[in-house]
Amino acid sequence: MGLQKPRVAIVGATGAVGNTLLDLMTERGFEFESLELVASARSAGRKVAYSGEEYTVCNLENFDFSNTDIAFFSCGTPVSKRYAPVATSQGALVIDNTNAFRMDKDSPLVVPQVNGKILRKRPRSGVIANPNCSTIPVARVVHELDKAYGLKKMIVSTYQAASGGGLTGIEDLHKSVGDILNEGKAEDAHAGRFPEPLGYNVIPAIDVGLETGFTLEEQKILQESRKILELPELKVSAHAVRVPVVNGHSESVYFETEKDIASADEIADLIRNGEEVEVYHQGAEIRYPTPVKVSGSDFVHVGRIRKDRLEQNAGWFWVVSDNLKVGAALNAVQIAEKVCAFAREEV
Amino acid sequence: MGLQKPRVAIVGATGAVGNTLLDLMTERGFEFESLELVASARSAGRKVAYSGEEYTVCNLENFDFSNTDIAFFSCGTPVSKRYAPVATSQGALVIDNTNAFRMDKDSPLVVPQVNGKILRKRPRSGVIANPNCSTIPVARVVHELDKAYGLKKMIVSTYQAASGGGLTGIEDLHKSVGDILNEGKAEDAHAGRFPEPLGYNVIPAIDVGLETGFTLEEQKILQESRKILELPELKVSAHAVRVPVVNGHSESVYFETEKDIASADEIADLIRNGEEVEVYHQGAEIRYPTPVKVSGSDFVHVGRIRKDRLEQNAGWFWVVSDNLKVGAALNAVQIAEKVCAFAREEV
Repeated sequence: MGLQKPRVAIVGATGAVGNTLLDLMTERGFEFESLELVASARSAGRKVAYSGEEYTVCNLENFDFSNTDIAFFSCGTPVSKRYAPVATSQGALVIDNTNAFRMDKDSPLVVPQVNGKILRKRPRSGVIANPNCSTIPVARVVHELDKAYGLKKMIVSTYQAASGGGLTGIEDLHKSVGDILNEGKAEDAHAGRFPEPLGYNVIPAIDVGLETGFTLEEQKILQESRKILELPELKVSAHAVRVPVVNGHSESVYFETEKDIASADEIADLIRNGEEVEVYHQGAEIRYPTPVKVSGSDFVHVGRIRKDRLEQNAGWFWVVSDNLKVGAALNAVQIAEKVCAFAREEV
Repeated sequence: MGLQKPRVAIVGATGAVGNTLLDLMTERGFEFESLELVASARSAGRKVAYSGEEYTVCNLENFDFSNTDIAFFSCGTPVSKRYAPVATSQGALVIDNTNAFRMDKDSPLVVPQVNGKILRKRPRSGVIANPNCSTIPVARVVHELDKAYGLKKMIVSTYQAASGGGLTGIEDLHKSVGDILNEGKAEDAHAGRFPEPLGYNVIPAIDVGLETGFTLEEQKILQESRKILELPELKVSAHAVRVPVVNGHSESVYFETEKDIASADEIADLIRNGEEVEVYHQGAEIRYPTPVKVSGSDFVHVGRIRKDRLEQNAGWFWVVSDNLKVGAALNAVQIAEKVCAFAREEV
C-alpha cells in the first residue's frame, strides 16, 4: 500500500511526545497498515496497550526499517542524527521531531498550514523536519500577517511550560512546588531537569548557550521562522523563558510589517483566516487564552491583539498552544496526514 | 527639625508595601523624629509592634497631617487622589506609591538613581510620585545605556509576581496552587484576586484595559519611562504578564539605540556603572538572576545581556528585582533619604 496507508514506526514511543502522538493518531483516525513502537534499549521489551492491542516496544539499536513507510522520531537530537539515516537508507520516510535536520537544506521544515505544499515531493534526504514547539504557533499566526502586510521583524518573549522538558520536566515542576510547600525553601528544592528549581520561579534560558549570547532555543526561533515562512531576510530576535506551567507554551510577540496596519480588528480578522486558530478579540476589550485553559486543545489560541500606539506598522499578539500537540506531535501527524493524502491523490 | 529629621506618617501601613516600608526604614536606619501608622477605617485601631514600640493604627479619614513632614502613601490610587491633597494642604510632603500623580506635571516622578537631582526642589504639588514597579528597574538599567548610546526604543515583556497584587495576591497564588494539588482542577481553583487562577498558569494582562488595547500597566511603562528618563520621544511598547511567582518581578527587554553597540561586554560594563545593580555576565556564558534567588534583595539584578545578532544598534537584557522593595517601598525610602540629605546640606 505504501504511503496511501502506511506502515508506521514510532521511535521514542514511551516519551512525552511519543505518548501524545499515539493518542492523536487514535483521536484523528489516522489509518495505518501496521504500527511498531520503538525506543532505546532502556525501554525496549516494555508492553504498551494501544487501541485494544498490546505492543512490545522494540529496541532501536537493531530495529529493521525495511518494512516501515513512515517513521516518526522523537528521541532527542543525537538519536535522530544517528538512526534517521539508517531508517531512510532502509526506505522509510522520516518525520523528525528533533533539531537534527531542521536547517538541513535537503530536509524541508514543515508546518502544514503554512508550507504544506512542499510535501507533494519526497524530500531529497528522506527526512521531513518538524519545527521547534515555540516556532510552530508563531509561524502559523504571522504567516497570515505576512500575506497581507509583508512581515519585517518579530521580537518574541516566551513563557514555556515544564512539559517542554519532557515527562521528567513535569515531574520536576511538581517536585519543586511540593518541596516548597512542605519546606518553605525553594532553593533546596532543585530536582535537576532544569538549571534552577522551577516551582514559583521563572528561568530565563532554555537549551544550551551559543557564542552569540543567545540560546539554541532562541536561535531556532530565528532560523526556523525564516525557513518555514520563506523569508530569508526576516528579522527575528527572541528571549526564551521557562515558567512554572505544566503544559502549554505562551509567547508575547511584537511584530513590524512593510505596510501600515489599519486597526487591531484588521489584525484579528487576518489571524482568523488561519486554519485551526481560535482568536480572542472583541474591539478594545482585553481578551486572551491562558495555558491552563488551552492545554489539550488542537488549536492555536491568539489574544491581546493590538496595534502599536507609536508605530503605524507594528502590533502585538499573545499566542498559546499545547506544546506537546500543536508544537510537536500534532504537527508531525498533520505532516503525515498530508503526505498520505497527496499519495492517495496521485494513485 | 523638619525634613532634616522628619516626622513620618505611613498611610497604608498594614498592606504589603507598607509592611516592607517599615522593615526597610529599620534596616537602613532611616532617622525620624516621630512615626505614625495610618490606614483605612477597616484596619484603624490595630496594634502594630515596630522597633520595640507598639503603635496604634490611625484612621485616615480623620488623620491630621499638620504634624507630619513626610507622608508615604500606598493605599491605592483612589485613596491617594482623595487624601494626598489633604496631607499636602496641611503641610506634609507626600511620597506617593500609586498611579494618582505620576503623570501630573507638577509632581516629579522619581527614581533617585536616575533623576534624583530633582529632589533638591520641593515639588509644586507637594507630591513626589514613586513610579510603577515594572518601570523602576528597567529605567535604572537603560539610563546607563542611554548615556552611552542614546536610547531609541524598548520592547518589554514582563513576568510579574503575585505580590504585585498585594498580600491577597500572594494568598490567592498559594490557594490556587493548593487547590490544584488537592483536586487536580485548576479552573475550579479561582480565588478572585486575579482574573484567572494563577497557580501553574500565566495571565497575559495586568490592570485595566484601555481604548488602545493596551492595559494601564503597559501604558505606565511607556509614559513613566519617558518622564523619568526625560526622553519624551522614546519609543516603548510593553506587554505585561502575571506569572505564578510569589515575589520578584522579571522583565525581558529588547532595546535599540542611536549609536552602534560594540559588544555584550560593553553593554554589561555600562550597566555595571549603575548604583546598586548586580550584573550576571561573563563573556558568552548564559548567566542570569531568577526571582526565587533575588526576592528580598535591595539591588536590581541583570543578566542574559547580549547584543542582537542582526542589528548593530540593538540588544537584550533580563532584569529581576524585588517588586515590593526596589519596585516600591525601597524607591520610596530612597526618595525620602535623598530629600532629607538635601535638606541637611542646606542647613
